[in-house]
Amino acid sequence: MTDFPSSHALFQRASAVIPGGLYGHTQPAATLPGVFPYFAASASGARFRDVDGREYLDFMCGYGPVVLGHADPALEDAVAGVRSRGLCFSLPSEPLVELAEELTRRIDFADWAVFGKNGSDMTTWALQVAREATGRRKILHIKGVYHGVDAWITPGHGGIIPEDRSHIHSFPWNDADGAAKLFEQFRGDIAAVFVTPYHHPSYAASEFAQPAFFPRLRQLCDEANALLILDDIRVGFRLHNGGSHIPFGLRPDLSCYCKAMANGYAISACVGREPFRKAARQVFLTGSYWNDPVALTAALYTLKRLETENIPDHLERMGQRLAVGLKTAAAEVGLGFELTGPGTAPYPIFHDDANLFKIQKFCAAALKQGLFFHPHHNWFLCAAHTEGEIDEAIERAKPAFAEAAAREGSR
Amino acid sequence: MTDFPSSHALFQRASAVIPGGLYGHTQPAATLPGVFPYFAASASGARFRDVDGREYLDFMCGYGPVVLGHADPALEDAVAGVRSRGLCFSLPSEPLVELAEELTRRIDFADWAVFGKNGSDMTTWALQVAREATGRRKILHIKGVYHGVDAWITPGHGGIIPEDRSHIHSFPWNDADGAAKLFEQFRGDIAAVFVTPYHHPSYAASEFAQPAFFPRLRQLCDEANALLILDDIRVGFRLHNGGSHIPFGLRPDLSCYCKAMANGYAISACVGREPFRKAARQVFLTGSYWNDPVALTAALYTLKRLETENIPDHLERMGQRLAVGLKTAAAEVGLGFELTGPGTAPYPIFHDDANLFKIQKFCAAALKQGLFFHPHHNWFLCAAHTEGEIDEAIERAKPAFAEAAAREGSR
Repeated sequence: MTDFPSSHALFQRASAVIPGGLYGHTQPAATLPGVFPYFAASASGARFRDVDGREYLDFMCGYGPVVLGHADPALEDAVAGVRSRGLCFSLPSEPLVELAEELTRRIDFADWAVFGKNGSDMTTWALQVAREATGRRKILHIKGVYHGVDAWITPGHGGIIPEDRSHIHSFPWNDADGAAKLFEQFRGDIAAVFVTPYHHPSYAASEFAQPAFFPRLRQLCDEANALLILDDIRVGFRLHNGGSHIPFGLRPDLSCYCKAMANGYAISACVGREPFRKAARQVFLTGSYWNDPVALTAALYTLKRLETENIPDHLERMGQRLAVGLKTAAAEVGLGFELTGPGTAPYPIFHDDANLFKIQKFCAAALKQGLFFHPHHNWFLCAAHTEGEIDEAIERAKPAFAEAAAREGSR
Repeated sequence: MTDFPSSHALFQRASAVIPGGLYGHTQPAATLPGVFPYFAASASGARFRDVDGREYLDFMCGYGPVVLGHADPALEDAVAGVRSRGLCFSLPSEPLVELAEELTRRIDFADWAVFGKNGSDMTTWALQVAREATGRRKILHIKGVYHGVDAWITPGHGGIIPEDRSHIHSFPWNDADGAAKLFEQFRGDIAAVFVTPYHHPSYAASEFAQPAFFPRLRQLCDEANALLILDDIRVGFRLHNGGSHIPFGLRPDLSCYCKAMANGYAISACVGREPFRKAARQVFLTGSYWNDPVALTAALYTLKRLETENIPDHLERMGQRLAVGLKTAAAEVGLGFELTGPGTAPYPIFHDDANLFKIQKFCAAALKQGLFFHPHHNWFLCAAHTEGEIDEAIERAKPAFAEAAAREGSR
C-alpha cells in the first residue's frame, strides 16, 4: 500500500503520455521513488500540499524561484494591473527597460542587461558573447557543475555529439593551478571561464571558494583577455541584493540570473560590463514570450521586496537557525549532521555517509513528518520561513533523526 | 518631430542599459525604424495601444501567440483559480499530465509529449532526440528557415563557431532532389530532416509544398531510418486543431509547438511517435519554471477554445477576407498586391517590388491609419479579428495603398 495513491495514479497516467513519466529535476528518480510524492496540488507561503492532500513544510521552494513564499498575495496584487493589459504584445513594453535599469543600478559591475525565460538561455548566450568578444573558441568550467541543459554542458548523456564539447574543458573547484594549466595549454584560444559563486553540485556538500581561487581566476582571465562569467542562477539575489559576487569578492565580466528574480514567474537575465556590449549586440537573442510585461513586473517587484525587507539577511539567519537546530537534534541521537553552503540554500550531509544511505533514510522519515527535505540537492529557504516554521521543522526532524539513527544501528 | 515621443524617449533609456536598445524580433530595425512605434502599453482583443497612446488594429498578435485575442477575459478567468494556488511548485502538477494527454489525443501520430518555455527549447531537444535515436550526427533543414536561436540554426552570426554547424546541412524548399543528394552524400549518417508545414521565411513570400515534396522527404527518411521533424511553432493549432501536418498531408515523427498554444502564456511542446519514446527519455530536459501550472492550464484552455469554437476555420476565413479586400483595394490604385501563405498567417507582397520599397511605404502609411502591418514578417490573425475588424482594416488600408501608389509614381 502506498501513502500516495493519487500521486501514483497520476504518475501512471503520465507514464502513458510522457517519456519516463516525468522528466528533469522533479522526476521521481531525482528524490526517493516510492517514498516521496510525485505531484503538488497547491502551495502557500512556506508550505505545499500534494495531490493526496498531505501538507509539507517546503524546503525546496520550487528549486529556488520561490523566495518570497508561494502564491505571495502582494506580488499577485502588484502584477494584476499589468496582466489585465495583456501579456504578449507585438512590441516590447516599459517594464523591460525598467528592469534593465534596475539590474544595472543594483549590480555594481553591470552596464547592460538582457532577458530570457530559462537559465540555460542566458548561460549559453553568455558563452556566445564571450566567443564573439574574443574571437576564440575555448570555454573553461568547473568539473561537476550545472550550467543548464544545452549540449555544451547538459548533465544528460543522450543526443550529444563530440563536436558539442570539442572546445569545452573543465578543472576542479578551487584548483586554480588546474585552470592555469588549461590557460597554458590553450594559450590565445580561451574565450571565457564559467564559475558559480560557490560550488553547489548535486550529491555532494556545497563548497566555498578558497581565498585565492577567485582572485587567481580573475588574474588568469585578465592576463589572457578572457571573460570571467558568473553563473549566479542558483542563488542570485538570495545572498546579496547586488548579486552573489559581492559577498565572495568576485569581479565577473558577465553574470547570469534566473530563479529568485521573480518568485516563480518565468524570467532570466544576463548582465555585463561595457566592453562586451558590442559583442552582446551581435549575438542574436529572442523568444516567443520574451516581451511578457507580467514576468518583468514580477521581477521588479520581487527584487524591490528583497531589498526593502532585507530578505537575504533573513534567509541567512533562518538558514543558520535551521543548521544549528538540525545539527543539535542529530547529535542528540548520536548522528553527525550538517548543512553546508549558505543559509539560503543549504545542502545536507551526514558524516560517514559515503553511500548516502543515511541522508536518504533521514529525508524519507522527515517526509512522513511533513518536511520536504531533498536528499541530493541543496534546499532553498524563502521569506515565509519565519522562526516559527524553522523551529517547527527542527521539532519535526527529531523523530526523523531518531529513525535514521535506529535504522542505521539495526543494520 | 517624431510622432512617437514616448517611444523614442523610452528607446533612449533602453539604449543606455540594453545592448542595441532592444533585441530580437521586436527590435526597431526589424520593422521600420523611425516610422513604427517601439513600445506597447496595453492590448485588448485585436487592438493595442503604444506608449504614446495611439491605438492600432494589431495584425502581429505578439508574433503569433495571441490567437484568441489580447487579454482574453475568459482565459484569465480559467487560469485565475490555478494561479491562486501557486505557480512554481517543488513537484509537477496535474495540468502537466492533462496537457500531455490532450496533445496525444488531438495529434494523430503523437504517442507522448514534453514541454518547454521557448520554441528553441523544443527544436534543439528534438534534434538531440533524433541523434540519440539514430546514433547519427547529420541534420538536414530547409535553406533560409527559422528554427530558433540556438547555435546550430540561429539567423544571427555572432558567437558561432564552425563546430556548431559541422553536421548541419540545408537544401532549398521544395527541392526534394537536393535532399536526396544529401542523403546520398551522407549515407548512413543522417539523423533527421527538419521541415516547416509550409515555407515562411522573413523578407519573402510564403510558399506551400509542391505535392511531391513531403511524400518524397518522408520516403527518403523511411529508407534511411532518419526522423522527419516538423517545426510547427509558427502556425501550430492555427491551421488545424490536430496540427498543421494534417492539412498538408505530412507524416512527421516528432513535431514542435509553441506560440498559439496558450494565447501568450509561456509554453512550448514536442510530441513524438512511440519508437522515439526511449530516445526522448535519454535526452535531459528541464528548466526553472517548467512546472508552472498556470501556463499548462492556459494551454489546455486555449486548445479547447480553438477546437470548440472552430477558430482555425474562422482565422482562415478572416484571412481570406483580408486578402481579397486588400488585393482589391490595391488594384483600385493600380498596385499588384497579395497575401501569401495561409489566411491565419499571411505574408504581404507587392508585385514588382524586388527592393521592398513598396511594402515598406505601404506599411508605413498603414501605420498612420492605425494598422500594425509588418513589412517583412508574416502577419497573424486572432479570433478577435471579426468581419468588423477585417473590413475596418481594408477601409483603413485604402489611403495607405493610395499613398504607396502616389509615392511610387512620383519617384
